[in-house]
Amino acid sequence: MMLFRYLLISSWVLAFPAMAMEALPDKPPIPDDNPMSDQKVALGKQLFFDPRLSVDGTISCNSCHNVMSSGTDNRSVSVGVKGQKGGRSAPTVWNAAFLTAQFWDGRAATLEDQAKGPVLNPVEMGMPNEKAVIDRLSTIPGYKEQFKAVFGGKDPLTYDNVAKAIAAYERTLITPDSPFDRYKRGDKKALSGAAERGMKLVDEVGCTGCHNGVNFAGPSLPMGQGFYQKFPTFSGTEYEKKYDLVADMGRYEVTKDDSDKHMWRVPTWRNVALTAPYFHNGSVATLDEAVRVMAKTQLNKTLDEDQVNDIVAFLNSLTGEFPEQTMPRLPDYMNASVVDTH
Amino acid sequence: MMLFRYLLISSWVLAFPAMAMEALPDKPPIPDDNPMSDQKVALGKQLFFDPRLSVDGTISCNSCHNVMSSGTDNRSVSVGVKGQKGGRSAPTVWNAAFLTAQFWDGRAATLEDQAKGPVLNPVEMGMPNEKAVIDRLSTIPGYKEQFKAVFGGKDPLTYDNVAKAIAAYERTLITPDSPFDRYKRGDKKALSGAAERGMKLVDEVGCTGCHNGVNFAGPSLPMGQGFYQKFPTFSGTEYEKKYDLVADMGRYEVTKDDSDKHMWRVPTWRNVALTAPYFHNGSVATLDEAVRVMAKTQLNKTLDEDQVNDIVAFLNSLTGEFPEQTMPRLPDYMNASVVDTH
Repeated sequence: MMLFRYLLISSWVLAFPAMAMEALPDKPPIPDDNPMSDQKVALGKQLFFDPRLSVDGTISCNSCHNVMSSGTDNRSVSVGVKGQKGGRSAPTVWNAAFLTAQFWDGRAATLEDQAKGPVLNPVEMGMPNEKAVIDRLSTIPGYKEQFKAVFGGKDPLTYDNVAKAIAAYERTLITPDSPFDRYKRGDKKALSGAAERGMKLVDEVGCTGCHNGVNFAGPSLPMGQGFYQKFPTFSGTEYEKKYDLVADMGRYEVTKDDSDKHMWRVPTWRNVALTAPYFHNGSVATLDEAVRVMAKTQLNKTLDEDQVNDIVAFLNSLTGEFPEQTMPRLPDYMNASVVDTH
Repeated sequence: MMLFRYLLISSWVLAFPAMAMEALPDKPPIPDDNPMSDQKVALGKQLFFDPRLSVDGTISCNSCHNVMSSGTDNRSVSVGVKGQKGGRSAPTVWNAAFLTAQFWDGRAATLEDQAKGPVLNPVEMGMPNEKAVIDRLSTIPGYKEQFKAVFGGKDPLTYDNVAKAIAAYERTLITPDSPFDRYKRGDKKALSGAAERGMKLVDEVGCTGCHNGVNFAGPSLPMGQGFYQKFPTFSGTEYEKKYDLVADMGRYEVTKDDSDKHMWRVPTWRNVALTAPYFHNGSVATLDEAVRVMAKTQLNKTLDEDQVNDIVAFLNSLTGEFPEQTMPRLPDYMNASVVDTH
């Protein structure tokens, strides 16, 4: 990890050609221990949309990672059970399958690990423990049958398998064929003049030192090895206080290692036009301002408005095609509610 | 209306043959001033699922009327913005198109009228006024275009048209082909022995005095003319206190007419197996107990357990086929959030 940190300081970016911006593959990496199947994806989709995974039956994964839109809730921070607010802005689930670490601080290595977190987080879905989740799902005949069919074995309905099914569904949430991807594959008319200028600028300015690779979230490291950067890299800018950028210590909160203070997983640029507000605390309302802030805090550069507009035009060209999906039908529970609300 | 009230007292039910239980038509009544079109339904579906119709971007119509399951949230009362609880249990949106009055107290005559309520209710979706809704939707290009295409005219994006689009979508939420419907159309094997006994019992006991017609929610009155019944009809039962049945004055809260005290719109039996907990306050957790309570409070009858089980078996035969739906794609808003969460 130290190597990458070193490589990413801006002086390096200026001295070496930037890493490649790449077209999005149709399929993300699939872990050996969680192969895809249609049945597993269908089960995962049900779980993703099922508010019965929350203590009071009000919040599903989709509540904060809305796959009918941006894969986020477009809020600064999310609202969980009992109206509680979370501490960080919900990252998009679209193309999260390409990330090599999950959460803003990379505390989960895989989508499977990530899926286990919010369900048990008291300010998110608020289930008291894994057993309570499994007890509840076990009472729903449709889930019991599907877990048996998908995972087999003596004890198929486990918390690990809940996470595996959700992760399998999430690996279908890929948005290929953005204007940039079409351009990259040879359709030179796919980008506007402004977007083309912006594409060159993000290289020249140095943004692609971090925002590179298929997901513009850093190089394709082995799964679990996150790609982090210090934010702000240049401290003391006007933005630091204005947007409260340093209160949250980032990855340090997980590792308690001083060198992880204010280190953050580099977020994707894909569909970034749709995922406002921006940054870990959702403090910046607009994409143009996010571009200004990043140029200043990460590269110590002040962009003029033409540059900002061109970069935003390029970022807008990273909005992909969202696959049409069928709505899941959640497994029935008969003659009573599986969530006790009395 | 007085005529129906008179007809519904239990002595009448015993003296006359019960009104017919009818199979569900494929299509509900369509009002002349809101004809159906595929484009309107698609727009209405987007609006139904769009949390941007709530003040803080967290609650959509679907949050409390989940069409991926029962058309309810299976909670005693719903949770709206800022964790606030509503006053009554969310009725199912499935087959609501057949009801001749909406809400538990019938305060909306049509689906169009109903749709306008929760968006502006401070404990539900919490938008401050109609203008705020229209201002927000107007900033979303995809909505602006669609309202123009669907409604035309000089000012197509109005609160009335928002309600019309949502109502048009809701008129597609029909669940035909329940075992009962198949039985009614000639497939005598569609019902189990218990369900068949239950079907006879609900006539003999008197339940179908109110729960009749295609939706088991009363006769097909002209749209806007609700079909109400006093609940409890027989006061002083053990259930009245246990389930807090009389605190809420029902339709009286709307009309302030003494004769409307504890009058309630008769709710549908269709998919009732899936819509627990039961009654206007969601106080009864299970369907078997709901059957016991209704027999006692409405007909002054104490059912034995075999009778309860048979009636529940019949009610379970009213679970229909839920149509497969595509997921809506919510119209994009670029480079900022349309909901200000700062």
